[in-house]
Amino acid sequence: MKPKSKVWVVFGEQVKLGDGRARLLELIDELGSIKKAVARFGMSYRSAWGYLKELERAAGFKMLTRTPGGGPLGGTRLTKAGRHFLDRYWRFSRGAEGAIKRQFAKSFKNKKK
Amino acid sequence: MKPKSKVWVVFGEQVKLGDGRARLLELIDELGSIKKAVARFGMSYRSAWGYLKELERAAGFKMLTRTPGGGPLGGTRLTKAGRHFLDRYWRFSRGAEGAIKRQFAKSFKNKKK
Repeated sequence: MKPKSKVWVVFGEQVKLGDGRARLLELIDELGSIKKAVARFGMSYRSAWGYLKELERAAGFKMLTRTPGGGPLGGTRLTKAGRHFLDRYWRFSRGAEGAIKRQFAKSFKNKKK
Repeated sequence: MKPKSKVWVVFGEQVKLGDGRARLLELIDELGSIKKAVARFGMSYRSAWGYLKELERAAGFKMLTRTPGGGPLGGTRLTKAGRHFLDRYWRFSRGAEGAIKRQFAKSFKNKKK
């Protein structure tokens, strides 16, 4: 028997962000493009764009910013606030995974099966 | 922003049990009847029965036992091993919920939004 878990955060009671959406934001930053990121993610541009707008509105800050031109600074990249948020999100998500495993070991201690 | 989570356990890589299924087992015990419990749960008898058989096979022990007749001992009730398992499961599930909230507070400390 093994523990399984899923964690996410909710902004304003409605807009969810979990590991998948956190990775999408990072992929956009890495590729500099929402379009390229959604293509790899198997998600439609329209639904990603709608989600990102809702997320920023609910969060109260911009996650992404677009600079015209190519190179490492051009394209759509995470804002400083977006990067900061994601760093904390991953600290939460990974920390929670560890905490859940420890709680499982503690709760089922002495259990043979 | 708030943390959300879902935890469950998996037996033998395949058979899942989370809070909903744990409550179903307890409701069967309370009502003494799979049929009455599934009616309240809005689940079909066939799928509940199939799930329970799979669960017991994967867990390696009986969760429920049926005694003919009425009264507090008649009907379908949790076995001692089933009760013991559920006590530990709830300890895990509730403990995990607390641990996740603490991890969230720790990870997003100093964050204003």
